[in-house]
Amino acid sequence: MSLLVVGSVAYDGIETPFGEVDRILGGSATYISLASSYFAKKVHLVGVIGNDFADEDIELLKSREIDLNGLQKDNSGKTFFWKGKYHYDLNNRDTLDTQLNVFEKFDPVIPDQYKDVKYVALGNIEPTLQQKVLDQVNTPEFVVMDTMNLWIDITKDALKETLKGVDLLVINDSEARELSDEPSLLKAADKVMAMGPKNLIIKKGEHGALLFTDDEIFSAPAYPVIDIFDPTGAGDSFLGGLLGWIDYTDDLSTENLRKAVVFGSVMASFCVEKFGPERLKNLSEKEIYDRYREFRDLSRIPEVQ
Amino acid sequence: MSLLVVGSVAYDGIETPFGEVDRILGGSATYISLASSYFAKKVHLVGVIGNDFADEDIELLKSREIDLNGLQKDNSGKTFFWKGKYHYDLNNRDTLDTQLNVFEKFDPVIPDQYKDVKYVALGNIEPTLQQKVLDQVNTPEFVVMDTMNLWIDITKDALKETLKGVDLLVINDSEARELSDEPSLLKAADKVMAMGPKNLIIKKGEHGALLFTDDEIFSAPAYPVIDIFDPTGAGDSFLGGLLGWIDYTDDLSTENLRKAVVFGSVMASFCVEKFGPERLKNLSEKEIYDRYREFRDLSRIPEVQ
Repeated sequence: MSLLVVGSVAYDGIETPFGEVDRILGGSATYISLASSYFAKKVHLVGVIGNDFADEDIELLKSREIDLNGLQKDNSGKTFFWKGKYHYDLNNRDTLDTQLNVFEKFDPVIPDQYKDVKYVALGNIEPTLQQKVLDQVNTPEFVVMDTMNLWIDITKDALKETLKGVDLLVINDSEARELSDEPSLLKAADKVMAMGPKNLIIKKGEHGALLFTDDEIFSAPAYPVIDIFDPTGAGDSFLGGLLGWIDYTDDLSTENLRKAVVFGSVMASFCVEKFGPERLKNLSEKEIYDRYREFRDLSRIPEVQ
Repeated sequence: MSLLVVGSVAYDGIETPFGEVDRILGGSATYISLASSYFAKKVHLVGVIGNDFADEDIELLKSREIDLNGLQKDNSGKTFFWKGKYHYDLNNRDTLDTQLNVFEKFDPVIPDQYKDVKYVALGNIEPTLQQKVLDQVNTPEFVVMDTMNLWIDITKDALKETLKGVDLLVINDSEARELSDEPSLLKAADKVMAMGPKNLIIKKGEHGALLFTDDEIFSAPAYPVIDIFDPTGAGDSFLGGLLGWIDYTDDLSTENLRKAVVFGSVMASFCVEKFGPERLKNLSEKEIYDRYREFRDLSRIPEVQ
């Protein structure tokens, strides 16, 4: 199997109550690729970087055997830069600076050799660009898509159009409420699924995640991380772990989607333990499977007679 | 085994987006007793009612075989009355009217025959009254206590004193944050448990509940009730189902506490389906166990190799 990841590659400046970094590798495609690389046989990254992109970051991605043939280098400018500050409770953040740079003209071109890919991850970029990706690939088996409040606000129609070609939408609770205009999460889920996606995951931060399929609901717990260090990339790591597991197992059963949600949660729980993608550089299989088992035990309800 | 329940017995006026009732049986002791009566061998209710308390409500409690020898009748006034209105999202409510009536002078007197009771449920009343109950009983095995923001605000010292004699405190997330002065729920749990209670449950409404014991955390899902009709009494039903199950099984192992949390969640999920305690009048064993299994399936994480 192989997995196509399209999204942003960026440098982030991050302030949290626990410290700050001026510039660290970031972007949705980066986190998705790193997290999925622990599972997927081959990850193909499509994105754009500028003339300031560091060789060591190329080496990092290559060290995880991520295929960079679709990573465009645009020498006319710098890499996308974002700077944000997290509040005390880490649930909210302020954007301090956004420099789109070469990302402003990003036009995702899918190399021919990826067009028959089976699994596609559409990281959080403008819905029309996500649609452009779908227009270039040949009937992928499973498309997972992320989005954000900004696109719901300013490009809702395009977003709804793109949703029609998506097998799994992964959004957070506030995005689900905004997209559906419905305060109840369960009713919001119904409305969002009526827009097209066959499956829906609503991430609830410290409250875990809900998976909605056509015939059931699965409630996944959040890992009790006492000291979340930096939430940046948690959602993308979730998506990467999830689709990486699906690619690895090549199994789209509801039972396996449950496992995928938990592997997504596992990768997100690692991601937040250190700044940026630091913790996703060198995880062992044992660490990943051990944490999966911790999730299992955390929410295990004993049988009664 | 037998179970002592102390708390309020009331009439409630309730407005929800789905309708309203002027006057329906309510109060913490009522809901706790009704919910626990499906499990506990004998439930002893201690509370006070006024001269307006209806015979049919006495009959209702008796029909669930709740022992009313500790239910004081004070003919000098009316029964405690509360009126509230729930907002559209049902997570918040406004109190429209509170008439303490005979409840203002409530002095819980525990009849001699209940003093050796093994399990005690302290419904949400003033902490000094809860302490009075503990002062009258002889070394119960397991004391479960509820409280509310009002007591955290105005009687925090008395509350902390009472907490020292409690085996399990059951509060919601905002109460946990207020009691501990800590936004992170996990840190709040640590701080609250340092105040005395050996175990702690934090209820998170539509996000389920967390059980903290000395050696583990259990994350229970919320039942996906699309149409919550009336949330009144859900927390008390949770407590009743929980302690009722513990009484029935007479087992204080962590494993059994997990089951108790889920039976509490089961009873709360039934409670909200109709106005007031209506749904708690006539549940079948099959309905209860079926819903327990639904909870199990909802959060079941498959094993991986």
